Amino acid sequence: MRACATAAMVALHRTLRNALHSFSAPSSYALFGPNLPDVWIPRENTSPHTHFPETFQWSNGNGHNNAAILEGKPIAKDIKFEVAEDIRRMRSGIGKFPRLAVVFVGDRSDSHTFINIKLKACDQVGIETVVAQFPENCTENELLDAVSSFSDDPGVHGIVVQLPLPQHLEEEKIINVVSPEKDVDGFHPTNMGNLAKRGRKPFFVPCAPKGCIELLLRHGVEITGKRAVVIGRSKIGGLPTSLLLQRHNATVSMLHAYTKNAEQITSEADIVVADVGIPNLVRGNWLKQAAVVIDMGANQVKDPHGQGFRITGDVCFEEAVKVASAITPVPGGVGPIAISMLLSNTLDSAKRAFGIV
Amino acid sequence: MRACATAAMVALHRTLRNALHSFSAPSSYALFGPNLPDVWIPRENTSPHTHFPETFQWSNGNGHNNAAILEGKPIAKDIKFEVAEDIRRMRSGIGKFPRLAVVFVGDRSDSHTFINIKLKACDQVGIETVVAQFPENCTENELLDAVSSFSDDPGVHGIVVQLPLPQHLEEEKIINVVSPEKDVDGFHPTNMGNLAKRGRKPFFVPCAPKGCIELLLRHGVEITGKRAVVIGRSKIGGLPTSLLLQRHNATVSMLHAYTKNAEQITSEADIVVADVGIPNLVRGNWLKQAAVVIDMGANQVKDPHGQGFRITGDVCFEEAVKVASAITPVPGGVGPIAISMLLSNTLDSAKRAFGIV
Repeated sequence: MRACATAAMVALHRTLRNALHSFSAPSSYALFGPNLPDVWIPRENTSPHTHFPETFQWSNGNGHNNAAILEGKPIAKDIKFEVAEDIRRMRSGIGKFPRLAVVFVGDRSDSHTFINIKLKACDQVGIETVVAQFPENCTENELLDAVSSFSDDPGVHGIVVQLPLPQHLEEEKIINVVSPEKDVDGFHPTNMGNLAKRGRKPFFVPCAPKGCIELLLRHGVEITGKRAVVIGRSKIGGLPTSLLLQRHNATVSMLHAYTKNAEQITSEADIVVADVGIPNLVRGNWLKQAAVVIDMGANQVKDPHGQGFRITGDVCFEEAVKVASAITPVPGGVGPIAISMLLSNTLDSAKRAFGIV
Repeated sequence: MRACATAAMVALHRTLRNALHSFSAPSSYALFGPNLPDVWIPRENTSPHTHFPETFQWSNGNGHNNAAILEGKPIAKDIKFEVAEDIRRMRSGIGKFPRLAVVFVGDRSDSHTFINIKLKACDQVGIETVVAQFPENCTENELLDAVSSFSDDPGVHGIVVQLPLPQHLEEEKIINVVSPEKDVDGFHPTNMGNLAKRGRKPFFVPCAPKGCIELLLRHGVEITGKRAVVIGRSKIGGLPTSLLLQRHNATVSMLHAYTKNAEQITSEADIVVADVGIPNLVRGNWLKQAAVVIDMGANQVKDPHGQGFRITGDVCFEEAVKVASAITPVPGGVGPIAISMLLSNTLDSAKRAFGIV
């Protein structure tokens, strides 16, 4: 009887759905806009200018020809020291310690590198790690089960799902089962929403954006009232950085691949953050004199002087250093701080779990 | 034995907490920035200029002296008609209909007005409403219980908590217990986070911002690649509007009370959205020739020609209409569409609940 009623309901629903489809309901408008990929087309040759034309007159106005270098390594070292010291006291005080679960699918060499850096850093400060590795062809359910069980396990305080995932796995679905209270990467929508809403405090803020703000704050860069331009709007980099800068009362403009005059808008900014993934996209002549430049890029390029590769940023450092008042190096800028923020986030989560707040 | 162990643990935690407090952990930095109120200080007299100085040379470049008026009422009427028609079919097809719960605390006259408008609109399209009214001095728990029970009730498809709440009630706590799947106002952090993250689809988008985009789309205003300025960053207006515009690939700058040169930045924008709450803040000379202007303001001001009050926007309409290519009136612009979006969101929620997607 119940089955019949259900079957009848399904049939009715189907009829109704078909009928409703004939209407142009408001939701049929492309409310969210076209979900186009951000393909940047650099407007000029992106190889770095090592020499400026003679007409180049900018200076960074600090009496020197070069910007201050915002080194990330010393800050990262400080943070790691503080985290390690906290964990040492935690162990000796209550015999407990933070534990981070790392979920890794497939065999990408860059993912391997990133995971090894994270695991090594955890080991250095006393965070225990659990790695769940899955083959490239694992099913979504296998992955969901693993992440769910880490979310439920009171002995795990942080969960990192190494991105990108293979195409057949739906990233959104996987991230959604990470408990927001263990989402040490800060990618869960609830944490992102609480980051966007001023006055609210997410459990976690994504590590690299948190590192950017930390860098600015520790170097005494004033943010309130400044014009900031964030170039690139990735969910893990540009977007959360723009939200944080705005919470610090900067006037933020978010530039992306569909921005028509990125150079001109960037040239008005006091603080420029680049998170694009194109080596040397941001040139010296994009920058306002004495701007502060944060380069979140980490692009692998062939080393012209050797056989191997080197890591380079999204900003043409050789040019920018002569215009900016301060600039992060790549490597050695945002990267190391981001790793230390993962440690700090995991420690915070463990403290919350142990009732030490 | 267990109690003793717990007591010992508490003591240990306390000792540890005190020890940890002596450290300057990274989280002690003001990561989220100062949570200052957005107090706008208009830089000039905000009474509308009814006459331009003779040197005023701008025109809106469309061959006329005045902008096109982006009327909201006809669009709102269309949407209401579509919603009513869907509900009529739903009733006749499966004998079901959407139900909206409205939670209201205290006795603010403006809240009464807004609620009455919403209830009347629901009634017009066939959405059943349940109103839970609480006295000004109700406890947080009473309110939490009511909202939770609506969240759990399968017969309720949408929940509106009328804001602002009295000061002793924590808005964040209340909004968090609204089920994201019934959050027809789109204020829950999970919905806001999914709005911020491109490629994701929140269950609901806040009504007035959704109305702004609907207005632009239905009037054929191109958004991709345009420079947009959103003045004001409220969680229910400016912020979600900026996120939506960005998803439509506009280059968005978010202005607020700490922006130093709001006029100049606004004058570069193709699309200007004002959501500040100050009558006539945005003047004609803030605008680029032929800009499209969306005024989300709804300010009650004394009517100079009468004894009563009238509603006016954040934009000095008399000036802006001579510069812009298109502008929303206040009242009659965004407002009516926002109400129709609440109806549309409630219908969408009911469809999802009934399996009609």
